Amino acid sequence: MKSTKVGIINVTGYVGVELARLLHQHPYVEITSVTGRSAAGQKLGRFFPNLATYDLTITAELGDCEVVFSAMPHKESARECAPLVKQGLRVIDNSADFRLHNPQDYPDWYGFTHPAPELLKEAVFGLPELHRQALTSTKLCANPGCYPTGAILALAPVVKENLIGPDIVIDSKSGVSGAGRTLSLGTHYSEVNEDISAYALEGHRHLPEITQELNLLNPRQKHAVTFIPHLTPMTRGILSTCYATLFPGKLAAGKKGVEELRQLYTDFYKDKPFVWIAADPPHTKQTYGSNFCTVYPTISPQTGKLIVISCIDNLVKGAAGQAIQNMNLMLGLPEVTGLQALPVYP
Amino acid sequence: MKSTKVGIINVTGYVGVELARLLHQHPYVEITSVTGRSAAGQKLGRFFPNLATYDLTITAELGDCEVVFSAMPHKESARECAPLVKQGLRVIDNSADFRLHNPQDYPDWYGFTHPAPELLKEAVFGLPELHRQALTSTKLCANPGCYPTGAILALAPVVKENLIGPDIVIDSKSGVSGAGRTLSLGTHYSEVNEDISAYALEGHRHLPEITQELNLLNPRQKHAVTFIPHLTPMTRGILSTCYATLFPGKLAAGKKGVEELRQLYTDFYKDKPFVWIAADPPHTKQTYGSNFCTVYPTISPQTGKLIVISCIDNLVKGAAGQAIQNMNLMLGLPEVTGLQALPVYP
Amino acid sequence: MKSTKVGIINVTGYVGVELARLLHQHPYVEITSVTGRSAAGQKLGRFFPNLATYDLTITAELGDCEVVFSAMPHKESARECAPLVKQGLRVIDNSADFRLHNPQDYPDWYGFTHPAPELLKEAVFGLPELHRQALTSTKLCANPGCYPTGAILALAPVVKENLIGPDIVIDSKSGVSGAGRTLSLGTHYSEVNEDISAYALEGHRHLPEITQELNLLNPRQKHAVTFIPHLTPMTRGILSTCYATLFPGKLAAGKKGVEELRQLYTDFYKDKPFVWIAADPPHTKQTYGSNFCTVYPTISPQTGKLIVISCIDNLVKGAAGQAIQNMNLMLGLPEVTGLQALPVYP
Amino acid sequence: MKSTKVGIINVTGYVGVELARLLHQHPYVEITSVTGRSAAGQKLGRFFPNLATYDLTITAELGDCEVVFSAMPHKESARECAPLVKQGLRVIDNSADFRLHNPQDYPDWYGFTHPAPELLKEAVFGLPELHRQALTSTKLCANPGCYPTGAILALAPVVKENLIGPDIVIDSKSGVSGAGRTLSLGTHYSEVNEDISAYALEGHRHLPEITQELNLLNPRQKHAVTFIPHLTPMTRGILSTCYATLFPGKLAAGKKGVEELRQLYTDFYKDKPFVWIAADPPHTKQTYGSNFCTVYPTISPQTGKLIVISCIDNLVKGAAGQAIQNMNLMLGLPEVTGLQALPVYP
Repeated sequence: MKSTKVGIINVTGYVGVELARLLHQHPYVEITSVTGRSAAGQKLGRFFPNLATYDLTITAELGDCEVVFSAMPHKESARECAPLVKQGLRVIDNSADFRLHNPQDYPDWYGFTHPAPELLKEAVFGLPELHRQALTSTKLCANPGCYPTGAILALAPVVKENLIGPDIVIDSKSGVSGAGRTLSLGTHYSEVNEDISAYALEGHRHLPEITQELNLLNPRQKHAVTFIPHLTPMTRGILSTCYATLFPGKLAAGKKGVEELRQLYTDFYKDKPFVWIAADPPHTKQTYGSNFCTVYPTISPQTGKLIVISCIDNLVKGAAGQAIQNMNLMLGLPEVTGLQALPVYP
Repeated sequence: MKSTKVGIINVTGYVGVELARLLHQHPYVEITSVTGRSAAGQKLGRFFPNLATYDLTITAELGDCEVVFSAMPHKESARECAPLVKQGLRVIDNSADFRLHNPQDYPDWYGFTHPAPELLKEAVFGLPELHRQALTSTKLCANPGCYPTGAILALAPVVKENLIGPDIVIDSKSGVSGAGRTLSLGTHYSEVNEDISAYALEGHRHLPEITQELNLLNPRQKHAVTFIPHLTPMTRGILSTCYATLFPGKLAAGKKGVEELRQLYTDFYKDKPFVWIAADPPHTKQTYGSNFCTVYPTISPQTGKLIVISCIDNLVKGAAGQAIQNMNLMLGLPEVTGLQALPVYP
Repeated sequence: MKSTKVGIINVTGYVGVELARLLHQHPYVEITSVTGRSAAGQKLGRFFPNLATYDLTITAELGDCEVVFSAMPHKESARECAPLVKQGLRVIDNSADFRLHNPQDYPDWYGFTHPAPELLKEAVFGLPELHRQALTSTKLCANPGCYPTGAILALAPVVKENLIGPDIVIDSKSGVSGAGRTLSLGTHYSEVNEDISAYALEGHRHLPEITQELNLLNPRQKHAVTFIPHLTPMTRGILSTCYATLFPGKLAAGKKGVEELRQLYTDFYKDKPFVWIAADPPHTKQTYGSNFCTVYPTISPQTGKLIVISCIDNLVKGAAGQAIQNMNLMLGLPEVTGLQALPVYP
Repeated sequence: MKSTKVGIINVTGYVGVELARLLHQHPYVEITSVTGRSAAGQKLGRFFPNLATYDLTITAELGDCEVVFSAMPHKESARECAPLVKQGLRVIDNSADFRLHNPQDYPDWYGFTHPAPELLKEAVFGLPELHRQALTSTKLCANPGCYPTGAILALAPVVKENLIGPDIVIDSKSGVSGAGRTLSLGTHYSEVNEDISAYALEGHRHLPEITQELNLLNPRQKHAVTFIPHLTPMTRGILSTCYATLFPGKLAAGKKGVEELRQLYTDFYKDKPFVWIAADPPHTKQTYGSNFCTVYPTISPQTGKLIVISCIDNLVKGAAGQAIQNMNLMLGLPEVTGLQALPVYP
């Protein structure tokens, strides 16, 4: 039953452990190899006690497998993945290394020259709600960043339908696990607890992904996105509050316009099993531990401004869960396979 | 496939929503009825947005079903459950109403006279690690309290083997969800956040359950349990730190004795799929959202005192998950059915 | 020394207890009367154990005093305060009842007709950084809302100097204590912990205060403010992220423009002891328990958008501390008297 | 007025910043020198933004001062402090280096041979509630550990009066700031949040301090203390739950005995301004940011066991505040000088 062999490169971070947690519930694939340089030789189930039931040893080198998830940092990930793609393996990369179509974005935003620019054309940006078809036939999936996942899903319907102007504000609030398992003062408990702060005011690296996808959805205008992420005292979850100016006359006035807007979203996501159009303003907790994204579009009665809020679990729909969703598509499986667990609440 | 019809009485609290979350993953049962007085008429998936995929309406009265979970408060639960048991339904009661064998405990500890004392003999205390056999043949399961589950699992091996004296201290630390969804100043966010406190110093209602089960495990002595629960600023999880005096001469001195102790625990729980003997001091987070209980027994090198620490998720192994584990046994299913999701970490 | 007698109406909420905490450090005033209907007869130091050193009993009616802080809810507060003002007492009202100059705002935003509209002209909006002079000669101070305090201080310099257009987004993130001590599901620990959500998307009651003050600062344009508050899993603190479009040509391009902007803020707040222009993006924790407000203005390098972030402790600068700052001005004392304790970090 | 010059060695940790925060309110001393190797040359108010009002630069070497607080780690602190003591400065050491009277405890518990064992006799254990007299005449104060402060204050009255047997359990729950500002996986936000765990099961270094002081209080018996600390998801606060067996016949039975016990505590602490005998089970939050310790003694009605709970803020009464309290005594000032700010609640 569990017939497809899966490997995880760099299992020792939060994306790695989350992949292993979620794949445990997958009926058709089996993890056969997990790597991690510093932890090589250790039992996976001791390194991460929540994975105690796994009987796997972390190794330095990748073993035999057909599908590979890379949870390496950017720059290193491209180097690891490129040969695997060339060997014909299916690769889902969780780094940014294959997300951006323009090779120049790598020196500009990430400070390195891309080692395999020829793969950028082959790679598919792994947001299944936008690129499902392409994902079914690629061998290289660039799993999106956590912030772009929530932000693009919040804005796609109105951008696609050319309802809003190019000046967009995305104010995102993320749990701390998005910063990973590597230690830093900014993720030290006593610093983050009972605190909120904005960061990356000079421009966050997820910005070019967001702009790229919005521009693809509506090539008639170049979007000017002001994206400010905030660190919030919680482990998981991203809530993005998006603000834009509606073109006049496209929606009815007042509550009627809000209804039309909600209908537009409902239609856009009608066959997307992981996007819920929320009936009430959403909470990150309503997606905790799950692959769901809740989206709530509305219009300010005072200013007529479009406001769209989306919530995801940054480690699931924003990383490991979406990676598995993409794997399912790449393997010809139903998109939801192994991902139907409901959010953990409260 | 999903052939057994299940009902949940009083779905609107945290045990109710957790039952619905977990049963969503169960391959053989289907929820057909959910009740809740104040919320009757509302859609379950709107009342609890994490259950959005359910197409069920909350009703005032229980509909057709074969298995019933009661999540009613004590006293009311006995009144609801008694007729259902008599009708031949399988009932798993999450209240305290059928946990205590001595009818006098109800006026003493809960302030009411038991309305169906004849059922107390029929009911099985639903800790499968101790009473698996009896659970396979009962129609009435008294699902244990959250604190007793963790505490009894921590102490059962040494009590059963008569290794410790009767004077036992159980210092438990619980997440706030254990206090339920009903509002109180003690569970108001600004009061509980960044705070820890002890409560029920006059004697917590879970004490008689603990004492009853320990006395059954070792009838040679009457256990004098000092049990102090603490409210901890987290949503889920109970960590119990148990202290007792080891009878001299039963275990080797020093590290050898700790090894013997660990072996005793490993043997005791060897065919109990949800109890893990932890290699390192356990964290509640290592059980988050799952039905696992981690147990860590050791001996103080300075004082020779036995120290056993256990962790559970109070809403899963401490409530809804254990209830499903019991249902599985009552239905003749493998104990682990639908409960194998790994803990959510971090 | 402690010669001015002070009373607190409705001491039993979070603003009341914070007033008592802060006034304990004030060298020149003494609390002589504290009221609270439901708690009348109880010792203040038992009702709020952090006030254990106070030897005061909560009463139903206000006793003898010269200065009164009202911590009543809106609508009731106006009724309590109006006669006191007429008796010649100095009154600092923490409700919204005297903040808005336009009487029609009360039915529109608060659902009641103002009982003492004649006092609206007399009342001074108690933001000392804008209205210090008027505060020194009033008997009735309308202490601002928590959100308006942070938002207006963030925007005042650029609005005053006519640097930005009228279309403003204020995305605020508040700790839970802002919702008070009254119980609600939305402030129940297990609901709020590990969660973030937006609320009041239909228009928050603090919006008219913000708009009123911005319009006063720059009457050349009518400001269209989109203000979305968010509930954040922390007890204290508000971070407001404000977005606006800079008029072209008013500031230099690039980093030079940011420097000019920072200088503008530094100049604007140069004799305002409680406003700090932050060197780095600010954290709410850097104001915890104190009357300071940190402000960080910058410009997006990608879009040229103005971004200003401010942080306050919602219960101090956003409520009780600012009320005392206003009292100091009303009594002719130095503004900082009794308020110089530094923020509690970490 | 601010006439005594004070220095802080290693101001860059949490004890250092807390000393600076608290001394800001002290009327008679002035910080003239702050050291910190890695941060030398930086402005104190930029390094710690909550200290923005300080105009001090962190230096590598200590400047001119009369009183020195050392916030160095153990072993290094003794080396720094010994010459200062010999120069005649008053030194308050926050490390463990002068707390233990028996030089052999240093190799046994801390792994180093004490470099200045002759000073161990001169040093006074800085718990003013026990050693006030000695503190007024010493030049070297060993400020106690955070856990010992709370635990000893909880137990001192009953130990001193010989009411309990030697077998004592201390189950302590600490906020994360007790682990300091140095990064570790164990204090990484995503690991600690929504988690509780026990640690140092092999014996925590604070144990010998506790035992030393209890043995001094009642030399008739050698106390066997089982002390288990727990890490709790909060920044500040320690709650210690202490369990012991009361000698029979010393207190009346039932509620009368509890009253006698409370009276004993009230009498013991009657002239100790920072210890409050709590009327209700205490909360750490009731001491937040302050130098107070709340103590709640009671007796289990079921088992007759003594239970005493104490709460402190680990960084104030458990470190910096107590250090200043000791400084006051060493300088002949009233014990409470500069330390009377009430706890921050909620």
